[in-house]
Amino acid sequence: MAAGQTERGVPLSTLNPKFLHTNSTSHTWPFSAIAELIDNAYDVNAKQIWIDKTQIKDQECLTFMDNGNGLSYDMMHQMLSFGFSDKKAVNGKHPIGMYGNGFKSGSMRLGQDAIVLSKSKTDLCVGMLSQTYLKKIRAEQITVPIISIKKPEANNVLEEHRASLRDILDHSPFNTQEELLTELQAIESTGSSTGTRIIVWNLRRTFARHMEFDFTTDRYDIRIPSDVLESTTEPDQRPERSDSSIRESDLSLRAYCSILYLKPCMQINIRGQKVETQLISGSLEYIKKCTYMPMFVNEIIPITFGYNKMSKDQYGIMMYYKNRLIKAYHSVGCLRNVNNGIGVIGVIECNFLKPTHNKQDFDYSDEYRNAIRNVATKLEEYCKEIRFKRKKSNPSDNVPVEETEKRLDQNWAQCDECQQWRRLPDGINTEKLPEEWFCYMNPDPQFRSCETKEESEDSDSEQPTNLKTYKIQ
Amino acid sequence: MAAGQTERGVPLSTLNPKFLHTNSTSHTWPFSAIAELIDNAYDVNAKQIWIDKTQIKDQECLTFMDNGNGLSYDMMHQMLSFGFSDKKAVNGKHPIGMYGNGFKSGSMRLGQDAIVLSKSKTDLCVGMLSQTYLKKIRAEQITVPIISIKKPEANNVLEEHRASLRDILDHSPFNTQEELLTELQAIESTGSSTGTRIIVWNLRRTFARHMEFDFTTDRYDIRIPSDVLESTTEPDQRPERSDSSIRESDLSLRAYCSILYLKPCMQINIRGQKVETQLISGSLEYIKKCTYMPMFVNEIIPITFGYNKMSKDQYGIMMYYKNRLIKAYHSVGCLRNVNNGIGVIGVIECNFLKPTHNKQDFDYSDEYRNAIRNVATKLEEYCKEIRFKRKKSNPSDNVPVEETEKRLDQNWAQCDECQQWRRLPDGINTEKLPEEWFCYMNPDPQFRSCETKEESEDSDSEQPTNLKTYKIQ
Repeated sequence: MAAGQTERGVPLSTLNPKFLHTNSTSHTWPFSAIAELIDNAYDVNAKQIWIDKTQIKDQECLTFMDNGNGLSYDMMHQMLSFGFSDKKAVNGKHPIGMYGNGFKSGSMRLGQDAIVLSKSKTDLCVGMLSQTYLKKIRAEQITVPIISIKKPEANNVLEEHRASLRDILDHSPFNTQEELLTELQAIESTGSSTGTRIIVWNLRRTFARHMEFDFTTDRYDIRIPSDVLESTTEPDQRPERSDSSIRESDLSLRAYCSILYLKPCMQINIRGQKVETQLISGSLEYIKKCTYMPMFVNEIIPITFGYNKMSKDQYGIMMYYKNRLIKAYHSVGCLRNVNNGIGVIGVIECNFLKPTHNKQDFDYSDEYRNAIRNVATKLEEYCKEIRFKRKKSNPSDNVPVEETEKRLDQNWAQCDECQQWRRLPDGINTEKLPEEWFCYMNPDPQFRSCETKEESEDSDSEQPTNLKTYKIQ
Repeated sequence: MAAGQTERGVPLSTLNPKFLHTNSTSHTWPFSAIAELIDNAYDVNAKQIWIDKTQIKDQECLTFMDNGNGLSYDMMHQMLSFGFSDKKAVNGKHPIGMYGNGFKSGSMRLGQDAIVLSKSKTDLCVGMLSQTYLKKIRAEQITVPIISIKKPEANNVLEEHRASLRDILDHSPFNTQEELLTELQAIESTGSSTGTRIIVWNLRRTFARHMEFDFTTDRYDIRIPSDVLESTTEPDQRPERSDSSIRESDLSLRAYCSILYLKPCMQINIRGQKVETQLISGSLEYIKKCTYMPMFVNEIIPITFGYNKMSKDQYGIMMYYKNRLIKAYHSVGCLRNVNNGIGVIGVIECNFLKPTHNKQDFDYSDEYRNAIRNVATKLEEYCKEIRFKRKKSNPSDNVPVEETEKRLDQNWAQCDECQQWRRLPDGINTEKLPEEWFCYMNPDPQFRSCETKEESEDSDSEQPTNLKTYKIQ
């Protein structure tokens, strides 16, 4: 073990190449690894990300390209190191990343090797994190070749990066400097002068040497082979999932990405097709909002309840953290009893909790247990309230709430230019909107320009309400 | 970020002090963090480990002391680094550690700071991994002060370790070299000249500033406060646990340690009292053995089924990996139906699977799903078989199997000297054995000496059997 030390002579803790695998073992569900790479694009303020499967010189690859700010040499080195995260809130948008580990754990879960190509305002920059390379050179520590090219010249690698360039050309799919530059050019195809392109190769295969993803069933999706899940007697044993029925978002990256952010503000494209997202309030009926004030946290947390318009089989609490989905369709309280609360969705953003290593759960702390207890109680009140109200308004109606036809109300559309959401007037069917929609198409002149700030979701009629009218009666 | 590089000029990936926390977030259940430290003692061939809670200069501490081989300077540096694991099988005993991450993730989950004191045959060695220290010196990388003292002199720290010594004395609970040496002496109280002593301080506290462990309810145990779990509506949401009823092993470290190893071969002492372990075959009735041959693995894996003698409420599959418990009481197949398979325990050692980051689950792979499917099928056959046999032998008996009184048979005792297991003749009540038991007390003269090799468990009457006699009938 080649041991480094500080100037004073105190040893440094070092990183064995095997740790890249160790560190990736917290992702047992591959979409949670992909989500880490999507989060990174989100955190560099990308407006769009493109996820593709491609072949480079006979190698199957996954690519992730965004039009965010791009990375400088130092940022690239941080991304290829461990625990460096100095992401800060920009314009009120809080970064998701906090552990400085997402790229490493995510990319090394998906494949053996990854290369990151990036264009920032001032630099072109390429870095490589490759287990195959480290094995081949018999590295005792994790070395991460990085090159940068200052922008005006844009073809001369700095002298001090020559060794890194050599290693990248020898051990990545790109064997000449020209090929690398061409690949960097691809970023401009996004229409932006800055952005980042990640290529993962030597993708993980199953024990039977099949690819772990199914790319053929849906040409516009990346799927987990469904027989894999259906044939098992215990679907909830994907450890990162909590309930027993298989949902489309467990198997389809497209479905998962459509709910990955509470308020989608980055367009996600999978294999050439945009993911249709929706504001949560647009997908629910009988919406009630209430609030929760966690102990020791001086903040009021809104909780939204409603009945799922799309499918009564998908119900439970959607728990987000800084806009990012952590736990989906989580069964709490009365939902755990069969036939209870079917179709009910609760939505809460828990910035006061701590996500776990793989961002698929929260640390099992006091705060977490309190939050769950509280949400469970409120959920039960909500269910009673809705039943009571329906009984009162129509005593002879015996159809359960979850079986009634849901109104299509509160439609919102997202502008493909500015990514802001605009409320559409009643009666407009969002399914009939053109695939690309822009603010200038808005029937409501008040919000017909990208310059206009987004309307608050809370300005609608569903103000926090006292849930206990059924008790007063 | 102070960036190191190789001689050729390729940057090294570096470690930010914050990564110590990041890396610990996969342990959401604190006993899984403690288990990592117990595994380390097991892997250095300790015969005993002592786990205690103590106070050092007003600081509440957890201590872990073993009488294993101790660590050299290089081994200490590996233990304080990431991903270094070159543990090898010794005398047929396979090491559990494989990721080179247990000490870091475990200790940093339990507290902010840890010091490791070790005596090997040739060295005295002390190392420190401390988040408080790194914060105070504003470290940009993880520095790990390590000192070693060659044994004959045993009081002079090597000149090149002076800076490390300074940092340890300034930032650990031991402020003089004498205090450190005294603490190293404590290892000899184990009766062994080699061993390791780990002290964790600045123990984690809950949001309400309480200690996360309950040390008072049972003076001889380390417990997770039970109100914490009982008050929640969803006990199974400790993400690392899979079923909904709370078991003693979830709350009591003593209970957890009693099942932590399939074949206990290291004595675990918690707060001064030995953990009573048991061979699994001694705790089951109606034992049947069958086998499973995983795809692509040229090995026959035994599965043992039986009815739990102690408690019919604790049932499910116990999944071990290299002798270490990974998943406990895991519900598969027919166990998932209420009233089905109550009291049935299945035991399987899955060395062909890959444990996850926190060693509380297996990677959700093809192999895993196949194994579970197979175990589920065999379990169902076992239940049918037992019901059929009982019906046949006594057609009028309608008491369910799980309600019948279990025989106390197949008693084994473990020698406190050599840690080997000895089968006791029928009729001896193991509960009435003296607290310390040695081979020379064995009524069976054939196995009355520590020199005699342990009898194979399989030499008893429970050979692998065809489970399907009920079908043939």
